[in-house]
This record gives sequence, structure tokens and C-alpha cells, in this order.
Amino acid sequence: MSKDHFLHGFLNPKSVAFYGANNKGGSLASIQIMNLIKSGYNGNIYPIHPKLDTVMGFKAYKSISVLPEVPDLVVIVLPAKIVPGIFRECGEKGVKRIILISGGFRELIKDRKNTLTEEINQISLKYGMRFIGPNCLGVFNNYFGEKDQYRAFNTAIWENIKRGTFSIASQSGTLSSHIWFDPDNLDLGLSKSLSVGNEANIDIVDCLEYYKDDTHTSVIGLYIEELKRGKQFLNLAREITPHKPIVAIYVGGSEAGNRALQSHTGSLAGNAMIYDAVFKESGIIKTEYVTEFLDIAFVLCNGVLPKGRRLAIITNSGGPGAMIANNAENKGLRVPELSEKLQEELKEVLPHTASFKNPIDCTFDMNLPYFYIDLPKMIMNSGEIDIIIQYGVVGFQDVMDDYLNYERITQYAEFKHQPDAIMDNLAKQLISPTLTNSKKYSVPILYVSPMCYTSPWSKRLRNNGALLFKYWDRPVNCLSKICDYAEFKQKKFLK
Amino acid sequence: MSKDHFLHGFLNPKSVAFYGANNKGGSLASIQIMNLIKSGYNGNIYPIHPKLDTVMGFKAYKSISVLPEVPDLVVIVLPAKIVPGIFRECGEKGVKRIILISGGFRELIKDRKNTLTEEINQISLKYGMRFIGPNCLGVFNNYFGEKDQYRAFNTAIWENIKRGTFSIASQSGTLSSHIWFDPDNLDLGLSKSLSVGNEANIDIVDCLEYYKDDTHTSVIGLYIEELKRGKQFLNLAREITPHKPIVAIYVGGSEAGNRALQSHTGSLAGNAMIYDAVFKESGIIKTEYVTEFLDIAFVLCNGVLPKGRRLAIITNSGGPGAMIANNAENKGLRVPELSEKLQEELKEVLPHTASFKNPIDCTFDMNLPYFYIDLPKMIMNSGEIDIIIQYGVVGFQDVMDDYLNYERITQYAEFKHQPDAIMDNLAKQLISPTLTNSKKYSVPILYVSPMCYTSPWSKRLRNNGALLFKYWDRPVNCLSKICDYAEFKQKKFLK
Repeated sequence: MSKDHFLHGFLNPKSVAFYGANNKGGSLASIQIMNLIKSGYNGNIYPIHPKLDTVMGFKAYKSISVLPEVPDLVVIVLPAKIVPGIFRECGEKGVKRIILISGGFRELIKDRKNTLTEEINQISLKYGMRFIGPNCLGVFNNYFGEKDQYRAFNTAIWENIKRGTFSIASQSGTLSSHIWFDPDNLDLGLSKSLSVGNEANIDIVDCLEYYKDDTHTSVIGLYIEELKRGKQFLNLAREITPHKPIVAIYVGGSEAGNRALQSHTGSLAGNAMIYDAVFKESGIIKTEYVTEFLDIAFVLCNGVLPKGRRLAIITNSGGPGAMIANNAENKGLRVPELSEKLQEELKEVLPHTASFKNPIDCTFDMNLPYFYIDLPKMIMNSGEIDIIIQYGVVGFQDVMDDYLNYERITQYAEFKHQPDAIMDNLAKQLISPTLTNSKKYSVPILYVSPMCYTSPWSKRLRNNGALLFKYWDRPVNCLSKICDYAEFKQKKFLK
Repeated sequence: MSKDHFLHGFLNPKSVAFYGANNKGGSLASIQIMNLIKSGYNGNIYPIHPKLDTVMGFKAYKSISVLPEVPDLVVIVLPAKIVPGIFRECGEKGVKRIILISGGFRELIKDRKNTLTEEINQISLKYGMRFIGPNCLGVFNNYFGEKDQYRAFNTAIWENIKRGTFSIASQSGTLSSHIWFDPDNLDLGLSKSLSVGNEANIDIVDCLEYYKDDTHTSVIGLYIEELKRGKQFLNLAREITPHKPIVAIYVGGSEAGNRALQSHTGSLAGNAMIYDAVFKESGIIKTEYVTEFLDIAFVLCNGVLPKGRRLAIITNSGGPGAMIANNAENKGLRVPELSEKLQEELKEVLPHTASFKNPIDCTFDMNLPYFYIDLPKMIMNSGEIDIIIQYGVVGFQDVMDDYLNYERITQYAEFKHQPDAIMDNLAKQLISPTLTNSKKYSVPILYVSPMCYTSPWSKRLRNNGALLFKYWDRPVNCLSKICDYAEFKQKKFLK
């Protein structure tokens, strides 16, 4: 049970003390408190400050020794040199969990011998404390509190984030916390995020252990610069990936990359080939790109796991169909020509100018229920195809509505704006049957629109559960890696 | 002069006749007329319709023979089989230019012998007409009318688009017309776009010829499935690329890609290796991705042409710095360690926790004028670096403003919302000197923010001319290809 894991307390504290916060707002500690306020944290907050009486309206204390209770968690953002003293105070108070945000430990040349790191580790050991960091950004838990009344416990992330089942452990604070501003990632829900920083005491292997049994985590995301416990990592990853996919960014291998790492978390990066081998052997999905990291997580969190690599491309425009086909084959997917039998079936619903082979180009004249429902169903039912990418789910009404902003058009046009309720209903009627069929036949479908992800029709499709991408490059690339993972998983279970 | 080229008339007609439009809005011809209305076209519009008296308030004519003048351009969206008859009518009237939107010509199996295509070509030859299409989406010209009063002549694109110097010729209507919805492409301005469809009469080589001398075109974008006049294309591209960059998507090479092409424009795609060789030899920048196509165009339209491959990475966060460094080296850029002399200089302005080698990690504590102005200037002035990517141009005030939405914070915080005028001024003061320095030292700088491209601070940076990207993957990839082009160009001029 993840509740029994020592990290559980870091993500579910009933009380938190803060070193370093004030009312000015610019400091990292103040931001941590403000994030708690934003997320509606209802536990006790104890700022510790030598001079201030209150911080953000919370009574401040001169020292941790005078707190009315032993806080479940302590967050420290103070200069490195005074941290050992704070650790001792915390230990004396009986604290068991610390998040050490401060930088200035082993990532600096002058502490290359890790004397400060060594010192705080010794103090922690003496008092039975564990700590995350140093040089990290904090934690996020979207399942804080009682079931049905979940709120977020969030010290790290500026944005309010959708609840989901993707959990991150990251050696970069940015990767754990600041990749959520993109409107294109709106549908990826986060479960937990742990910024582990320099890993002086708690590392990514601990996080993996915790996520392994966490019922709110279905996909795990890692940002790795160095693995301190390689063997444990490999064993744990092997155990996890047959059940929960892991997607990882590993940075290292290039000269400049390694130089960057040395100054970042102080790690000496390993040989990229060794990491590649470890990832491949353990079924970890590797990527170099943050957008791909998020895309893969998004698609996997939605249960997409194709049975094979046979892709059908439905399109209403030749160019995107050709680009998807070309890129898909270059990335190791297959775009098989449909059987004559299936082509004959398709001919009954498609216009005569359509193409039936694969890509299936319906042309612009396509009837909507055929395009959204019948055609995908015939393909899913054929047994010839494992995945569908459907390009061209355009919001024609949005386009028409835009024309209606022009008086000349409004005055003479025989078409008009459609009420929201009608459009909402249309989207539901077009998408729901296909998502039901997708489950029934176990053939995932990804949608691609040329229009903005947040345009009215795109929103309607997404509200009904459609996995929507803007442009066609990203879904092809991420599907290719997900197919690799699906094959890995099949092999594991066939053994 | 591009004005002397026969394509000039297609983009600058004083009158246009339309076959196929009505008032219902859903048809392609109606959309072409509505696009003209949206773009404020002030020439004469003549709908031709057998029954209707008016279309969108314009007097409709039963036949082209009864028009009060010979239209400069005719747009046809009618079934293929009646098109030859329409062509004859147009020829008899004295029409010289036709855009044939209709599909249903050689891309269909039953007309594989091109009898219809052959027929309309013969008619055109007889009457001295030229036509674009069939199976295309129309044209766009953002420089229609008199200088200082430019408007758009647009039959093809649904969105109103920024005026710029990127011009497209495309064998896909989607690539010519429907890639403009992405808020991330807001800063890429379009000059002209030509959807050439099946190229029965006018092809991409004609478009290249036209763009070569067009003063409003600084970067040319192509989408190619097949080159009918390969030798002419190669010669022309060789002539153009030393002066104007060409970025091209070529689709072909994979089995499914070729199948897609056959049904799309009816072309038999060539060998991908031959195309690769032609592109390389002629200095064309090749990409498979529409996002990269747009990124490369955006960066090139802003005059970015690095003198070499030496990249400096300025960051306030280690992870993105490491990812940029790693990806950059993997893509053929260099991320050299800075000289000791330069590192010593940097130490005077950076906090002691910073890293000075490259990536230059300023940490979160960085002072804004140092981060935005002094630091880039010292690097530009050093002569050690050809390009800068600066990560972390975060809108802290946007983050703070978000906290101020929470009563608990507003009540106690010692910081407050800053008026727009102050923030506008701050952005100007931080960005303008650096862009001036960038020109002075000929060292381009690309900015990357983790925040949304359209967030308030991001908008302010962009308004002041910053080339901004969301996430760091895309600028690295596109810079790598632009450096290849810059080297090609240097070699051409050194010969």
C-alpha cells in the first residue's frame, strides 16, 4: 500500500511549517505558502520568522521550538550555510519530514566534497528524519484529504491543474512544476508530482516505489539526469512497466549536456548508451522532448494501448493524410492497404471522389455522421486495423460563425448561428458512439483538428472525451513510442 | 519584376466571377466569396448561377456571356464533368485566368488517362487562358491594392492573417490555407499563398518563378508531393536559395505515403532519396513537420541567420538548460564552454549560486536587467557565440496577479497588481536594448517561456519584437536546420 510508504506523509501532511516565507511574494518560500492557499489546503500552516508576527495572515513563530504541535512537514528556503542548524532544531522538535528547497549544496564547486550535504544527512539520520532536496521545488498531490472531497496539497505548481492519474518524479523543478501552462495540455490530469532536486536523501527510486502501489497513479513520468541507485531502479522499473507505463526524459550523453548536469544537480551523467539499454530492457518509454513527454502521458492515461501497429488514417484532406502516412511509416507504424472487401463496404458510405485504400480520404463533401461514426466503426469492426488517426474534425459552425461577424454576410446568408445546446448535442452524438465502439473493438482513435485546441468545436469534442491533437505531427510520434511499449508489454505477458 | 509574371494577375484581379456559389454557406464557392468579403476585397464580384438572382447580395448572372465586363479572374467550383463547357464559355468571353477548385480529375482512377484534364488544357491553350488547379483551394495575397492601403485578396483562408513576408506554394490545400489557427503561430506573417492542386496547367515551378522576384516575399514555403519539372525546379531553386531561403515539406518515399499521394493529387511520387539529394544540392531546408515548417519560416522571416553553430544557453532553471544543451548537440549545434575570461566577466553580474560555463544558469534569483540585457550583451560582445537561446522569460507579475485572485493573499500580501503601462514599459526596457545589441553584434537571440504564448507577459515580449517560443524543443530543432542553410549560403558566396 502506498499509504505505508514513507513518502505518503510528505504528500498528506496535516500541518506544515515554513522557513523563509514573508509577505512580499517574490521569495520561493512565500510562493510555496501561496500555492497552499490557492489549492485550498485546510491543514495548519506555521510560518517561522525571526521578526514578522504574521505571514499571509498566519501567526508566525520565532522558532520551531515554540510551535504548538510537531508539524507533519517542514519546508525550508534559507541559505545553505544555516540549514544544518535548522535541521538540528527540527530534529529536536521531533520533525520527521523536511522539504529542502534551498540550492547551494553539492551543485556548487566549493561544496564538491559534499560536506554540507553530508552534515545534513548525518543530522537526519540521528533524528530519524527524511528529506526531499536540496535544490528542489516542492511537491504536489491532487488527492489530498477525504475521498469525494479531494483537494490539492501543492507547494510547487503555480497553476491549478486538472485531477488525473499521471504522476511525476523529476530531478528538475521545472519539469515537475512548470510544464502546465500550455493550453494544449489541458486534458492531461495530474495525480502527484515530486521534485527531488539533488536527491541527497530521497531519490527517484523512492518515488518509483511509492508510485508503484499508488492507486491514483496509472502512468509515471520521470526526468532523469543521473541514477544513483541504478540496479534498484532497473529492478523496480522491470516490476512496474508490465502494469504501469513509465515515460522518461533522460538528459545526458552530449558534452554540453553533461556540463549542464554538473552545475545543475551536481551529478556526473553516465553514458547515454547505458541509459538507453536500461530503459529498453525495462520497457521505459524514452523521449527527449517535453511536448512528447506530455503527449505520451496524455494518451496513455486515457488507456490507449494498441494491439498492434496497423494504423488507419481517416482524413478529409489529402495533404495531412499523406503526411501522417509518411511520418507513421518512417516512425515504425504500419499503414496497410485495406482489403478489397473493406474498400467495397466503405464505397457504400463515401462520396465517389473519396479514396478508399488507406489513408481513407473522404474529401470535404463528407456527411458528418458517416465521417465521425459509421466510417470509424467499419474500420474498427474489420479486424484489419489497430489504431485510427482521424484528421479534419473541423468546427465548420465556428467557421460559419466567424463569417456572421460581417454585415454583408449576415444580411444575405441563408445560414445562421446555432445555439450552444444544439452544437453541444451534435458533438455528443458524433463522438460518444465512436468512443463506445473504440472500447468495444479495442481500437483507439486519436483526433486531429487544424483548428485551435480551445476553439468552440474542439472544446466540445474534448468535453465528450475525444483525444484531440492540433496538427498531426505529435500524435504520430507519440503513438509510435506507445506501440513499442505495447509490444514490450505483450511480450512480458506472453512469457 | 514579379508584376510582369503571369501569376500576378491571379493575385491582383480587379474583378472576379464565381461559378458554384450560393447563399447557403456550406459550399466551397460560397466560402471563397465570403473570404473575399471578410478580407475587404473592393473589386467587382460576379456570381454566376442558373437560378438565383443574388448571391450574398451581389447580382447574380445566368451566364458569363452576359457579364458587363470580362472578369480578371474566374473561380469555378462545379462538378468536373461540366467544367470543359464552362472553360469554353470563359474562353469565348475573353477570360484569361481561372482558378479551378473542383476535384474529380486525374486523382480519380476512372480519369487516370487524364482525358478531362487533357480537354481543359486544350481549351485553355486555344483561348490563351491559364488556370490553377484542379483540386485546389484558391489563393491569398496580403498585398492587394495600393501601397499604404494594402488589404487581402483572399479566396482560400478562413482566418484573417498578419501581413508578413512568408509566401507559400502548396500541392495541398490544407498546407496552403488551414495551418493558421494555432495561437503559437501568431507572429508569422503571410505574404501570399498559392494552392496549386493537381498542377494541370500551373505548377510549383511557376510559383517559385513568381516569388523569386516578389519584393514582399523573403521566405518561400513549399509543400511538394511530386515535381513534374524537376530540372527547372532544381535550376530555379539553386538561383533563389542564395538570396531567399526555401523551406519545404516533401511527402513521399514510404509505401503508404505514395499510396496517399496517388489518390490525393494523382501524382506518382518519386524516390525520396532523389528528392533529398535535390533539396540538399539546392540548399532547400527540408522538414517533415508542419510545426517545424512554420517555426523555420517564422525565424527566417525575422532575419535570423547565425554566423555559425556556437550556441549559448541562458537559463534560470537547470533542467531546461540541460535539455536544450543535449538536444542542441544531438542536432548538430555546438554548445562550447565559455572562455575563462568571459566566465570571470559573468561572475561579476551573476549570483554566486549561478553556473558560468554554458549553459549559463542564472538561478531563480537573477536580477531582471542583468538577465534580459547585460548578460546577453556580454555574450554577444564576446565573439565566442553565434546564437543565444534564453530560457525562463517568465511573467512573474502574471504569477503574482493570479495569487491576488485569492482573498487570503490579497488581504495580507505586501505586493500588488502593477498597472499595464508599467508592465508594458518594463517589457520594452528589457527587450529593446537586447534586440538592438543582437543586430549590432549579429548574434540572434530566441526566447523561451514555460508560460502560455498568449499570457500577458509573453504578449508584451512579443509586442516588443522578441522571437518567443513556448517550450524549448522547437527552437532547437528549427535553429539546427537554419544553421545548415546559413552554411550553405556562406559557401555559395565564398565560391
